[in-house]
Amino acid sequence: MKKRNTVKRAEKQVVRFGVSLDEHLLGDFDRLIERRRYTNRSEAIRDLIRDTLVEQQWDDNQATVGTITFVYDHHVRDLTRKLTHIQHDCQGHILAGLHVHLDHDHCLEVLVVKGKGAEIRKVADALVSVKGVKHGKLTMTTTGKGLR
Amino acid sequence: MKKRNTVKRAEKQVVRFGVSLDEHLLGDFDRLIERRRYTNRSEAIRDLIRDTLVEQQWDDNQATVGTITFVYDHHVRDLTRKLTHIQHDCQGHILAGLHVHLDHDHCLEVLVVKGKGAEIRKVADALVSVKGVKHGKLTMTTTGKGLR
Amino acid sequence: MKKRNTVKRAEKQVVRFGVSLDEHLLGDFDRLIERRRYTNRSEAIRDLIRDTLVEQQWDDNQATVGTITFVYDHHVRDLTRKLTHIQHDCQGHILAGLHVHLDHDHCLEVLVVKGKGAEIRKVADALVSVKGVKHGKLTMTTTGKGLR
Amino acid sequence: MKKRNTVKRAEKQVVRFGVSLDEHLLGDFDRLIERRRYTNRSEAIRDLIRDTLVEQQWDDNQATVGTITFVYDHHVRDLTRKLTHIQHDCQGHILAGLHVHLDHDHCLEVLVVKGKGAEIRKVADALVSVKGVKHGKLTMTTTGKGLR
Repeated sequence: MKKRNTVKRAEKQVVRFGVSLDEHLLGDFDRLIERRRYTNRSEAIRDLIRDTLVEQQWDDNQATVGTITFVYDHHVRDLTRKLTHIQHDCQGHILAGLHVHLDHDHCLEVLVVKGKGAEIRKVADALVSVKGVKHGKLTMTTTGKGLR
Repeated sequence: MKKRNTVKRAEKQVVRFGVSLDEHLLGDFDRLIERRRYTNRSEAIRDLIRDTLVEQQWDDNQATVGTITFVYDHHVRDLTRKLTHIQHDCQGHILAGLHVHLDHDHCLEVLVVKGKGAEIRKVADALVSVKGVKHGKLTMTTTGKGLR
Repeated sequence: MKKRNTVKRAEKQVVRFGVSLDEHLLGDFDRLIERRRYTNRSEAIRDLIRDTLVEQQWDDNQATVGTITFVYDHHVRDLTRKLTHIQHDCQGHILAGLHVHLDHDHCLEVLVVKGKGAEIRKVADALVSVKGVKHGKLTMTTTGKGLR
Repeated sequence: MKKRNTVKRAEKQVVRFGVSLDEHLLGDFDRLIERRRYTNRSEAIRDLIRDTLVEQQWDDNQATVGTITFVYDHHVRDLTRKLTHIQHDCQGHILAGLHVHLDHDHCLEVLVVKGKGAEIRKVADALVSVKGVKHGKLTMTTTGKGLR
């Protein structure tokens, strides 16, 4: 937080570079990003760039953030206790969780998890493999840092 | 089987089938599922089956559930208002949301969204394309129904 | 643009647009594309754009090209005959095939297949599901048209 | 090749294990594999198992096999020479290649490449990043060994 002014200023330093490409390719790209609701070509390009960087951060096992989504039947005996137990074991990594009652039987939970890529994968493996968890997935996202 | 006393009983009807495979393939599989924390071969097989079924549900555009994860810089002017606005437009589909403050600048939000596959994709496109959202992803999961 | 002298000239019409982004994001991107052997920022951006368009062509079930890779044990009785039979049934779609002897037991085959996305998927399903085929995958690529 | 009889016998040792699951889940799975042309439940399960093992082999950077598919415009100056040059540099890894003339302008090439996962990725990066290559993809498959 020291030298905040400077840091903030540095973060906002916007540069510009030119991309040359065939006009038809650009036309197709413009149509695609319109379908995906982009109002701005630069923003679509930045999203492609950031996506690629986030994938690489995970490949390189850097410190990052992921979400773990899992759906389970809360009637399965002992299941809720097991899931809570695993989460407490991983306490340092789990930032928060959201619980949704999908119907009479099914719950969906999403956890936001921080750590190295491999650590987050371990938390996901531990949860998804529990009997009674019907579907589980790790979503690889980012701390946002460095993705200005 | 159609005339079982109650739906609940029918849901619990467990059957068993045999899988024949080479003993070395089974050995490799057993080592893999141990690494992924499974204590039970049947549960690992069921997870493979359910994964494949969930993928197909999304390919077939069936009614399902997804989570949308996105990371953004809340300092970007007007961003929070835009994101809230989009969520209200999709109100019928969004079941719940979780907000995490990752650091001084960055927020992560996860929404649990219900609807046909294509509808959930549209909500995701609308959110991810907003300027200031640095990374966004749709995670395809399930209502749990039919995945006993 | 419709009345350009020749199609060839139209295809070569290069335009240029500017992308604005944070200098640190650009620095990270430059490091990443260097790792991936790009010598040119425009070419890396064009590849990201073309990748996205190719994915969309497959989602939209357009006429396209894919390759089907499968590995099998040629000792399995009747396998070669079955695989040949399936390929003859799909004759209109298969452009060419390559056969590699991986070791004493295993063959790898790659087929180049043309058609609508859904048709190519069917050919892949038919081949991959045959007993004795140990691994099979469909790779979604493109005719190249429109991806100048 | 020594002790061939024994090795062959060991390879053919088939074991059987039981999977227990809900009858409705099994019904859905049976319908799905029928759509994907499987005639046999065991074969569908073995394919799920082998798929998972192949993914893990790539994650673990083991010795394996991949195919690299790329589409390019052969009119681009110097492109064919560059692509040939890269392939000669990677000679030890490339087992074979197939070349298809897609139309007047476009060629598709598929290479079968052997090596550790990371080495094969490098070959793919080198080829895909060349200017004039419009689309390129690495397909991760297997030597077939150990996937009986």
